[in-house]
Amino acid sequence: MNILEIATNRKTSRFFKPDKVKEEDIKYILETARQAPSGSNKQPWRFIIITSLEQKKRIRAASEKGEKIFYESLSDERKVWYVERGLSPCKKLLTQAPILIIFLGDTTAPNYKPSIWVSIAYAILAIEERGLGTVTYTPSNPIHVNKIVEAPTDYIVEAILPIGYSCDSKPKEKRIDLSKLTYQNKWGNPYKFDLF
Amino acid sequence: MNILEIATNRKTSRFFKPDKVKEEDIKYILETARQAPSGSNKQPWRFIIITSLEQKKRIRAASEKGEKIFYESLSDERKVWYVERGLSPCKKLLTQAPILIIFLGDTTAPNYKPSIWVSIAYAILAIEERGLGTVTYTPSNPIHVNKIVEAPTDYIVEAILPIGYSCDSKPKEKRIDLSKLTYQNKWGNPYKFDLF
Repeated sequence: MNILEIATNRKTSRFFKPDKVKEEDIKYILETARQAPSGSNKQPWRFIIITSLEQKKRIRAASEKGEKIFYESLSDERKVWYVERGLSPCKKLLTQAPILIIFLGDTTAPNYKPSIWVSIAYAILAIEERGLGTVTYTPSNPIHVNKIVEAPTDYIVEAILPIGYSCDSKPKEKRIDLSKLTYQNKWGNPYKFDLF
Repeated sequence: MNILEIATNRKTSRFFKPDKVKEEDIKYILETARQAPSGSNKQPWRFIIITSLEQKKRIRAASEKGEKIFYESLSDERKVWYVERGLSPCKKLLTQAPILIIFLGDTTAPNYKPSIWVSIAYAILAIEERGLGTVTYTPSNPIHVNKIVEAPTDYIVEAILPIGYSCDSKPKEKRIDLSKLTYQNKWGNPYKFDLF
């Protein structure tokens, strides 16, 4: 499959089978992530692979604490969006997934956030390519998770990717057509692809 | 090629041949980018394809204005890094590349920055897969570029990808070994892959 097919097939997975994830797949995913480009080539990313159930439980509890505060802060419109999708502060996926990979960003590196997110995106595509599922979970209050994994203060938990074989039946969220996203030379001037 | 091979082969290109880029390749790249996941599926990205040389010149002039201020602000250590690589406020690549794609982020969308950077990373890999080169150029003062492409104030230029067939002979910047990036269960606890 080419990258467009992988990207198109991919959808978010929030439910996982208990089946073990192969270590060679985890290695493949992280080998891909570390190839990302970064500001001044600082490679401002570190990975923590969570395999211990006890540690997953602590990470889940810390994450849910932050989520409760976040959900209370939501506008009514956004609350509806979450409720319609069955989303809530409960983060069962953090204990259900066989593996979590935590991506930590080096906040002292120039432009670290774009860099680490390119690295996360590389991982997302590699996960799909290996037949696995994930969701890009960004903790509402990453500091709580930082403490649990004992990260130094210069680093921040940017995302947690729970990884496993998906059993999430929800269809992919719709994407906006390219014709509505793309302009030529300046904003508002539609780009007319021959193939549209 | 699989994604790991594409990611590994890819290196930054700052010099481009004058050869035209195929429209089907641009379409492929953006079709891939729009498949990215995003916070609350807001898809906070818009693309402007720059084909006009006049517009490229204006974008380059606006970018260079920001770069001059940025370079003056650099620490001595970082200045050396840039000078060693022949980098300067001069952004010739913005007029040399046959095509620029500007990625604009919707700053009103929740968590828009991680989302648009996943989309940019998808594009980066698709560019490589199609045999093209790029560099992820983040303008030091994106507001100047915003004005030239007449973007609304809610949107911000996150990155400009100059795209073309590479004639950049510089080797890829080295990457840190996975064993030095990866921990298990908590920071500092090395993950020992069987394959290391």
